Amino acid sequence: MMLAALPTLAPGAVWLVGAGPGDPGLLTVLASHALSEADIVLYDALINADLLGAMGSHGRAIAVGRRKGKVTRTEAQTVALIIRYAVAGLRVVRLKGGDPFVFGRGGEEVEALSRAGIPFRIVPGITAGIGGLAYAGIAVTRRGVNPNVTFLTAHDETGSVPLGVDWVSLARNDQTLVVYMGLSVLDEIVRTLLVHGRDHLTPVAIISHATTSWQRTLLSTLGESILAARRARLPTPAIIVIGGAADPVNIFPWFDPDEAGQTIDAPPTAFENARG
Amino acid sequence: MMLAALPTLAPGAVWLVGAGPGDPGLLTVLASHALSEADIVLYDALINADLLGAMGSHGRAIAVGRRKGKVTRTEAQTVALIIRYAVAGLRVVRLKGGDPFVFGRGGEEVEALSRAGIPFRIVPGITAGIGGLAYAGIAVTRRGVNPNVTFLTAHDETGSVPLGVDWVSLARNDQTLVVYMGLSVLDEIVRTLLVHGRDHLTPVAIISHATTSWQRTLLSTLGESILAARRARLPTPAIIVIGGAADPVNIFPWFDPDEAGQTIDAPPTAFENARG
Repeated sequence: MMLAALPTLAPGAVWLVGAGPGDPGLLTVLASHALSEADIVLYDALINADLLGAMGSHGRAIAVGRRKGKVTRTEAQTVALIIRYAVAGLRVVRLKGGDPFVFGRGGEEVEALSRAGIPFRIVPGITAGIGGLAYAGIAVTRRGVNPNVTFLTAHDETGSVPLGVDWVSLARNDQTLVVYMGLSVLDEIVRTLLVHGRDHLTPVAIISHATTSWQRTLLSTLGESILAARRARLPTPAIIVIGGAADPVNIFPWFDPDEAGQTIDAPPTAFENARG
Repeated sequence: MMLAALPTLAPGAVWLVGAGPGDPGLLTVLASHALSEADIVLYDALINADLLGAMGSHGRAIAVGRRKGKVTRTEAQTVALIIRYAVAGLRVVRLKGGDPFVFGRGGEEVEALSRAGIPFRIVPGITAGIGGLAYAGIAVTRRGVNPNVTFLTAHDETGSVPLGVDWVSLARNDQTLVVYMGLSVLDEIVRTLLVHGRDHLTPVAIISHATTSWQRTLLSTLGESILAARRARLPTPAIIVIGGAADPVNIFPWFDPDEAGQTIDAPPTAFENARG
């Protein structure tokens, strides 16, 4: 590589690094560099553990964050830990699934670092709502299909669909929606959209474990998606696409999960059915 | 790096590769690998030419696509060229700014490759609407600020705001919008949002040449943004953020453009004022 020199992860600094959706090839050059330099990597329990292979031999990896039903550390504890390691003069990477600023609490962590006077850097990552879809052959935007796309998370603190989402707008039939962390509340999302007038024939795609050896895509319609997801027993994490982008005529699959070359045997999360 | 082996760019295959917003460190490992292997790289005129430094010495780079007011090749010509090189047995990279599937015509190119029977792969890239914002200290989503975010392009074939955009929904005061290619139609976007009832005090951030040595951020409000952009004479490409995410209280800058280490002197596009 003849690229310009990469910045240095300095002792006492924290880099918030996006790990991408799972495929190690989707780490950025800067993320890979950060992992190789870090003394400490605090990583979300949901990320593909293969990514930690990019760490240097001197680095130590610590799982933080939460899986469903099993909180390893609260967010406040994680932030306190990041700050403690930085103050101790270590080179700290906070490795987050996807992109740190897409439904990842990166904003809150940056605010805490800023207030604590800790130097930080953001290393954006490929978000599952774009890159995960691409591995299922789905273009998140397409001229003539959707002039805009809305990303939303369907999972707040309480585990249910968050308040403040404008379902009337989202139910408009020309909207393409990409829902993060929505599988466990799929029933609620689907019923809410149908109640607000969304066509029950609206295409729906659910992509589970996108970009990894365990990737599976379920194609359905809004009206049939609850039953289809229940039958398919898709595991989380999953990303849900609702609208024209998920129409089979617009999907061009190319990725063979068997060739993804994961070196670990089990998916990173427990299998879990769609609720209901 | 101890990561799993990367896939091979085979002769006769085409990889649609996202170049990210500009910072060479934001290339993915897979994108960098693709560039090093490629015999031919067909790249958008808008990308940071420094990225081509990742190419192998055997590779040839050809600029395609369009800049404002100067069409190098039409989209149909570009697709025909990609297919011709692939059929000739070359290893072809189509390098697109940002992510190939975010307002980049990647969907159309994939459809053409699929119909032509050319094997292809998508290599997602960091999109400016997420990663470019991060370099301005802006979190594209933030708990308590915006439960969802809408990405739209404001520039269709004719150079004006595309039809089919639901401005009533987008004008709701709790929506955060990220507008691609919107600077030249800023007047039209702003007036349309105001007419549909959006508060004139809504925060607006405009980030020009995000993630590069030429990055500049302009913070304003919806009511004052037209005049502020005209005064600041921000060059394109630029990304516009409208809503709570652009509120100065939620912005934590960290990136110093002077340290981005670009090796070329001039910005990749001509300076251009906001229209009007």
